[in-house]
Amino acid sequence: MTTQELVEQIHLKKSFLCIGLDVDLTKIPTHLLQAEDPIFAFNKAIIDATHHLCVAYKPNTAFYEAYGISGWKSLEKTVQYINENYSDIFTIADAKRGDIGNTSSMYAKAFLEDLAFDSVTVAPYMGKDSVEPFLAFKDKHTILLALTSNEGAFDFQTKKTDNKEVYKEVLEVSKSWKNSENLMYVVGATKAEYFKEIRKIVPNSFLLVPGVGAQGGNLQDVCKYGLSENIGLLINSSRGIIYASNDENFAESAAKKAEELQLQMESILSAL
Amino acid sequence: MTTQELVEQIHLKKSFLCIGLDVDLTKIPTHLLQAEDPIFAFNKAIIDATHHLCVAYKPNTAFYEAYGISGWKSLEKTVQYINENYSDIFTIADAKRGDIGNTSSMYAKAFLEDLAFDSVTVAPYMGKDSVEPFLAFKDKHTILLALTSNEGAFDFQTKKTDNKEVYKEVLEVSKSWKNSENLMYVVGATKAEYFKEIRKIVPNSFLLVPGVGAQGGNLQDVCKYGLSENIGLLINSSRGIIYASNDENFAESAAKKAEELQLQMESILSAL
Repeated sequence: MTTQELVEQIHLKKSFLCIGLDVDLTKIPTHLLQAEDPIFAFNKAIIDATHHLCVAYKPNTAFYEAYGISGWKSLEKTVQYINENYSDIFTIADAKRGDIGNTSSMYAKAFLEDLAFDSVTVAPYMGKDSVEPFLAFKDKHTILLALTSNEGAFDFQTKKTDNKEVYKEVLEVSKSWKNSENLMYVVGATKAEYFKEIRKIVPNSFLLVPGVGAQGGNLQDVCKYGLSENIGLLINSSRGIIYASNDENFAESAAKKAEELQLQMESILSAL
Repeated sequence: MTTQELVEQIHLKKSFLCIGLDVDLTKIPTHLLQAEDPIFAFNKAIIDATHHLCVAYKPNTAFYEAYGISGWKSLEKTVQYINENYSDIFTIADAKRGDIGNTSSMYAKAFLEDLAFDSVTVAPYMGKDSVEPFLAFKDKHTILLALTSNEGAFDFQTKKTDNKEVYKEVLEVSKSWKNSENLMYVVGATKAEYFKEIRKIVPNSFLLVPGVGAQGGNLQDVCKYGLSENIGLLINSSRGIIYASNDENFAESAAKKAEELQLQMESILSAL
């Protein structure tokens, strides 16, 4: 999916919501545990109930790897199901990978080509040659960690280097990389006050924003400083939506939670 | 495996060699492609031929993920085979993971508990709460990226923050984390001149050193500045060993290359 197509979907659905599919077998409704593939059964129900309210789904690969080979099968089936049934959806493999060049190429192939995700999250620590293999894929997107939503973000990301914090270096330096038009960035909603500074460096890039909901970030604050001409925001919520209830009506409960956020987004968009 | 047991193995085998199992189906002997699981068949042959010359094996997960579910099966079989047949070997999942706390816990469980690796490589960008879930596993080890072997290492890792480079911050700050005695660090062999400074901050920690061989790093230089009282080095070579030849005798060729390095290590150890 191109960036332009993503922006069109946002206007069409009046939503810039991304739903995180972080499936934990200890948290899903117990009746699903009888299914042949409980993780996929859960995802399918959530997707069928919410696809009109969001523009993106983001499975975090950790939750699938934790179940070994059967987990990888569930991940594969999930992205295939989205691609085959809801081609209007932008898919994000939240994998936070990054390695030396020839190795990053293997990761890029796995997520962007074989699994056919639209995008993948990548850690910047190893620099240019660890990220460019991901950027090489046409009409695919690399979402680079800039300022993350967790407390540990203050350990290194906000350290100053020659009067500029590390995360600003990441934003600034990455703009010069080959195919940098395929870059997006992760910026945590828990750091709303930073969006103003971030927009000075990357005024138009899409920002994937985790941390609304369970982690305490505020949607209004993020939009106030984070919205760009092209909207430029994908607001992610995972636990707050997918675990809204764990009874037989879990998918409807999830849709209600998703709709609450979508309606807030619709109101923000109509005020632009 | 405890650090003490690893040190004992180094003295016993007169080797601190780690062999990287980065298996690419386009590079292995073509006769293996007939096997039911060519990647595992290749690894098994390499392991059987070299286990007495090295103390550790390091599969890089990218090379397995690139083959999807069948790749994960090969990875699982490889680590199981090592654990069942060569309990004197230290295993490293070169996965470079790292995420917010609850997600890092899932990765830690996947690699240290389910796959039963002795250790896993982790990226430091997200800080303390992204790493501590890995450190919580008793007698398991977290190998934190400090100064990597690639060119991109100079993009962010060597940026100065308040007179200290980012990689030095990583070394310094991580020492204060809970269960930090379970930390090791990745330091590229291509940066031998940095080892002196690194040893001032982490005098005794084990350093996993990629970059000898294909990437151009020099063993003597690394040992000159990197050896600690407890040896404290695991020197990794991947392509230089496993692709020494791609005919029917590939495993013997690999063993010869491994022995060349082991003999250099034996001579370095005997001169201590």
